[in-house]
Amino acid sequence: MDFSSFLTSLGTSFVIFVVLMLLFAWLSRKPGNAVVYYPNRILKGLEPWEGGSRTRNPFSWIREAFSSTERDVINISGVDTAVYFVFLSTVLGILVLSGIVLLPVLLPIAATDDGLTRNGNTTTSKGTFNDLDKLSMANIEEKSPKLWAFLIAVYWVSVVTYVLSWKAYKHVSALRANALMSPEVRPEQFAVLVRDLPNVTPGQTRKDQVDSYFRSIYPDTFYRSLVVTNNKKVDKIWGELEGYKKKLARAEAVCEGSKTRPTTRTGFLGLCGKQVDSIEYYNEKIKELTQKLEAEQKVTLREKQLGSALVFFTNRVTAALAAQSLHAQMVDRWTVTEAPEPRELIWSNLTIKFFERIVRQYIIYIVVFLTIVFYIIPIGFISAITTLENLRKFLPFLKPIIDRNEIKTVLEAYLPQLALIVFLALLPMFLLFLSKMEGIPSGSHVIRAASGKYFYFSVLNVFIGVTIGGTLFRTMKSIEENPNSLVPLLAKSLPVNATFFLTFVALKFFVGYGLELSRIVPLIIYHLQRKYLCKTEAEIRAAWFPGDISYATRVPTDMLVITIVLCYSVIAPVIIPFGVLYFALGWLVLRNQALKVYVPAYESYGRMWPHMHNRIMGALLLYQVTIKKFYNAFCHTALEVACQELKQTPNMEQIFRSYIPPSLISQKQEDGQLEDALSRVSGTGSSV
Amino acid sequence: MDFSSFLTSLGTSFVIFVVLMLLFAWLSRKPGNAVVYYPNRILKGLEPWEGGSRTRNPFSWIREAFSSTERDVINISGVDTAVYFVFLSTVLGILVLSGIVLLPVLLPIAATDDGLTRNGNTTTSKGTFNDLDKLSMANIEEKSPKLWAFLIAVYWVSVVTYVLSWKAYKHVSALRANALMSPEVRPEQFAVLVRDLPNVTPGQTRKDQVDSYFRSIYPDTFYRSLVVTNNKKVDKIWGELEGYKKKLARAEAVCEGSKTRPTTRTGFLGLCGKQVDSIEYYNEKIKELTQKLEAEQKVTLREKQLGSALVFFTNRVTAALAAQSLHAQMVDRWTVTEAPEPRELIWSNLTIKFFERIVRQYIIYIVVFLTIVFYIIPIGFISAITTLENLRKFLPFLKPIIDRNEIKTVLEAYLPQLALIVFLALLPMFLLFLSKMEGIPSGSHVIRAASGKYFYFSVLNVFIGVTIGGTLFRTMKSIEENPNSLVPLLAKSLPVNATFFLTFVALKFFVGYGLELSRIVPLIIYHLQRKYLCKTEAEIRAAWFPGDISYATRVPTDMLVITIVLCYSVIAPVIIPFGVLYFALGWLVLRNQALKVYVPAYESYGRMWPHMHNRIMGALLLYQVTIKKFYNAFCHTALEVACQELKQTPNMEQIFRSYIPPSLISQKQEDGQLEDALSRVSGTGSSV
Repeated sequence: MDFSSFLTSLGTSFVIFVVLMLLFAWLSRKPGNAVVYYPNRILKGLEPWEGGSRTRNPFSWIREAFSSTERDVINISGVDTAVYFVFLSTVLGILVLSGIVLLPVLLPIAATDDGLTRNGNTTTSKGTFNDLDKLSMANIEEKSPKLWAFLIAVYWVSVVTYVLSWKAYKHVSALRANALMSPEVRPEQFAVLVRDLPNVTPGQTRKDQVDSYFRSIYPDTFYRSLVVTNNKKVDKIWGELEGYKKKLARAEAVCEGSKTRPTTRTGFLGLCGKQVDSIEYYNEKIKELTQKLEAEQKVTLREKQLGSALVFFTNRVTAALAAQSLHAQMVDRWTVTEAPEPRELIWSNLTIKFFERIVRQYIIYIVVFLTIVFYIIPIGFISAITTLENLRKFLPFLKPIIDRNEIKTVLEAYLPQLALIVFLALLPMFLLFLSKMEGIPSGSHVIRAASGKYFYFSVLNVFIGVTIGGTLFRTMKSIEENPNSLVPLLAKSLPVNATFFLTFVALKFFVGYGLELSRIVPLIIYHLQRKYLCKTEAEIRAAWFPGDISYATRVPTDMLVITIVLCYSVIAPVIIPFGVLYFALGWLVLRNQALKVYVPAYESYGRMWPHMHNRIMGALLLYQVTIKKFYNAFCHTALEVACQELKQTPNMEQIFRSYIPPSLISQKQEDGQLEDALSRVSGTGSSV
Repeated sequence: MDFSSFLTSLGTSFVIFVVLMLLFAWLSRKPGNAVVYYPNRILKGLEPWEGGSRTRNPFSWIREAFSSTERDVINISGVDTAVYFVFLSTVLGILVLSGIVLLPVLLPIAATDDGLTRNGNTTTSKGTFNDLDKLSMANIEEKSPKLWAFLIAVYWVSVVTYVLSWKAYKHVSALRANALMSPEVRPEQFAVLVRDLPNVTPGQTRKDQVDSYFRSIYPDTFYRSLVVTNNKKVDKIWGELEGYKKKLARAEAVCEGSKTRPTTRTGFLGLCGKQVDSIEYYNEKIKELTQKLEAEQKVTLREKQLGSALVFFTNRVTAALAAQSLHAQMVDRWTVTEAPEPRELIWSNLTIKFFERIVRQYIIYIVVFLTIVFYIIPIGFISAITTLENLRKFLPFLKPIIDRNEIKTVLEAYLPQLALIVFLALLPMFLLFLSKMEGIPSGSHVIRAASGKYFYFSVLNVFIGVTIGGTLFRTMKSIEENPNSLVPLLAKSLPVNATFFLTFVALKFFVGYGLELSRIVPLIIYHLQRKYLCKTEAEIRAAWFPGDISYATRVPTDMLVITIVLCYSVIAPVIIPFGVLYFALGWLVLRNQALKVYVPAYESYGRMWPHMHNRIMGALLLYQVTIKKFYNAFCHTALEVACQELKQTPNMEQIFRSYIPPSLISQKQEDGQLEDALSRVSGTGSSV
């Protein structure tokens, strides 16, 4: 690729971005699309358009994004999102400050030397672009005193990164503290999660065991406990019940629309069996399942108690103290940690025992390691098999389709990469699955764990793989001749590879952020679903519900870009403006999306920060051991924070209730019944 | 060294041991020596001889050592000592169980092969002993199927080590828990140490700052606080005062003995100046200094408060919770840790700030690293200078002494090693000094830190240095010819070096433990001091006071031996009986010393255990990441342990007082005065 073709592809991406942005400006003004472009505002009960008028400037979203304050972001999208923006603006600051010094100083120095031509180094410029290479360190002659300027530039970038990271740490720390000391009552601040309960002595219930243990340690502040039960069966019945309720609502909607009573078959998937009136049938089923559920709930609560529990305290300080403290002398008993938010608890992971968790963790680490290192082998194997020849040979019935010219062209272009594309699309899900298998008890923690794995995957494969791999292949022959030449070769080839990554970063953001902003894919899916599938209000709502901002893939991608840009910032400073553009555009587009589109699935009060912070440091290739000490304030609630006064006396019963899984909540709305069913597990002896 | 000379030196050492043991049996029966051989019993108020009779069997100490239970050890010498014996017996168990299987299986296998002679491997047997080498893996031919037996033996040793370590962990954990949940009131269980206090706001005192902070977090259980003050000046005055008190007691004792009033000079060191009556002069001085001290105490307590404090709670659970919990959002403020025992607090380290501690720690690590790697350079340099020639040349006045024949012989033998001997003797002190410089707040922690450094020093220098270094030097020539031969050479040379370490272990224990048991050196020092220096009871007591068991050097030495023995257990199983002898003899001798001699300087409830445990694992060359999880129960007090009932209601005032440094305690015995002076720092607003 020469310089002009680089400019061409850059121009094309830019045009795509502009088109998508115009599309967004046009589509987002149509009232029917409001639920796609402003779902978060609608769910918050706000007008889709600020000020209520939709006949405004089509680019006012930019003004709105810039004028929004951090407080707006926290109010509308939570602390986690605000922390993500601190990350984006910190990285932006680092790159801008680096660029201001590096670009005017290093570019002229590099341009005025001519190491590339003088060394006759023509092999490396093949497949890259000569003109850009002339602006990089690759153009400096060996042992030239001009290299000192590049060394000093490394220190400048490091100092800028340290100072801005330290400021960001203090800022994020304050954000977290402010959110945690909020006078709002949040159930998770009053609870702790207790795992690894030892076996009960005969005649003792789990409930008694937990209550007596915690009451003896916290006589004044223990409230009550919620023993985790085996909800497999009750969950299944509850799922069926909910399914029939949805079907009933749908049938009623159909009935209202067409004025005829819909019918259904009672057999497998409604395809066979006796034909009956849908509404009557569903009502009957619901009644039957409700009874079954009630019975199963009682059995579950009474007989299916497992070895872990949630314990509630009457004040936040005790809960914070308990969550950070060692409770049992033996390592594999009474593990107490902070309780996650009720909505993000992974119930099935709560009862995995201590040693099993350790073993699982190591197995997962090995699996991830093998995936990162060897994923290319099965993919290469599949690619080798799925050729057009083989398709014709083993699936002869496809022959007439394959042999059509236009399809043949497309297949020839994409078939070899099909396996890789499918793999890369499924990878985040696979990593989330692996992280969940580790036995992590909360959803946000699973996302952080998956994000870390994804980061290592992308850095090792994209960055190191291309740099080292490319260098190695190109120079394999000279290495064979003289093994000692490996190190200088690597150092020499890094600058040349910079141009590849420049293209990578430059092309990535225009198309990616254009798609993000215009939401073309969700828009099409929503309209299709609404037209052909959705019958009830709940179904339509589910069709446009935007989900959360998906940190599990977004943060690692940003991290990959910052790693690339920082590493090449001194070697080829021309990469910096592209990095700035990536993060500036990202800030702008995501600000809009956070304020108007995505609905956070959990709130971890910025626990992602230490991961971001540490990887920025890692990106500097200066691993800071001390950084670990900074983790604490993000893993635990500082007591000075927890002891702030609350706005109102906490309603402990409500806090306790928020943790009861929906499948265990009695369907009948009489409170007495509910109380009775639950009291078996948690009511007795509590200090209510 | 051939086999017969090895046997000779072994025999000599054994004879020395027997002689020393007989000496011990004889000397320890003399009543005048009781304070040297039974100081711990005497200080505990027990009879020196069990049963009160000293006309017993001279070897009954062996019976007493064997019949003593763990409870006796804990009562007389504390949990730390009991844990040390668990360590000794665990290692002994590992070696015995390994030896039972390895010796009868591997020795015949090795002896019936003849790889050494067949390979013509005669170079390696030079400088070692042929006969023992024939019993080691060195005698097995390459690629022989017999090597499988050695591989299986590795697994056997590993499994034995894991199982016994796990049992020991549970045992020690229970010991610690039992001691911590004792119903005795121990001040350190009610206190926490708070460092890194932020700057006070104008008009606020440190005391108010600490009190209001902790009262807001622990409204019900906060008792009062003790702000650390700058005691430099008050310590100096108190030291002078104590000195004069000692001198007075001494003068009074002299006066009583000789019936003449002793005199002294008032000038420098009592050597010049006016001659005065000692007793009168000292009394006057004491009166004067007491007044000065009182005034300085008031000034110190009022105006010299520093940025750290001890905070007291009314129950143990709160103190344990507080010590484990994060108090401030920012990492460099309000660091709360467990309070050490009053007697082991290092006051000067308490006020070192967070970031300074980190910086100091890294500097110390670098210094230790440099010491371990490069210590031989200055020592070699000094050795090169301090030759007889140079002594004659530069210190000509020594000539007549040096040239005497007998002195010349001794000097020729020891002069080259003098620097090394001095260095090795001073090393533990140097490492203790370095560890203290890290800013560690408690004495026991300093000893653990120094012990770790000593372990790395000895393993790297003695073990790896000799093994790898010896191998490298011997084979430098063949490596130069073919670099790829390095790895097999190392693997081949390890077995041959086993014989060196066999000698090392074998010779070490007989002489070392013989000296330990007979206490010849302290005995001589005591008798000399008593005869020529000591005048008062307090001075005599100081002359025989035994000090503690000095884990800082003892544990690393044991660790070095277990590392050597475990690593060679399979390669040269003949080393195992010597290891067994080392630990068995150590157990026996130290059991006697712990029960009768040494007085523990602190009680850390077995916190040394994780270090021992981890290094046994390290000795297996199988670094276990999971082990770190086991640390917790030794670093903190488990809450289930802390919430045990106490025998009596704790006298909080007494607990608080136990932490006041002696130099700050008012000399006048009227309690009102004491209360008044202290109330400025800690009385106001407390909940007494």
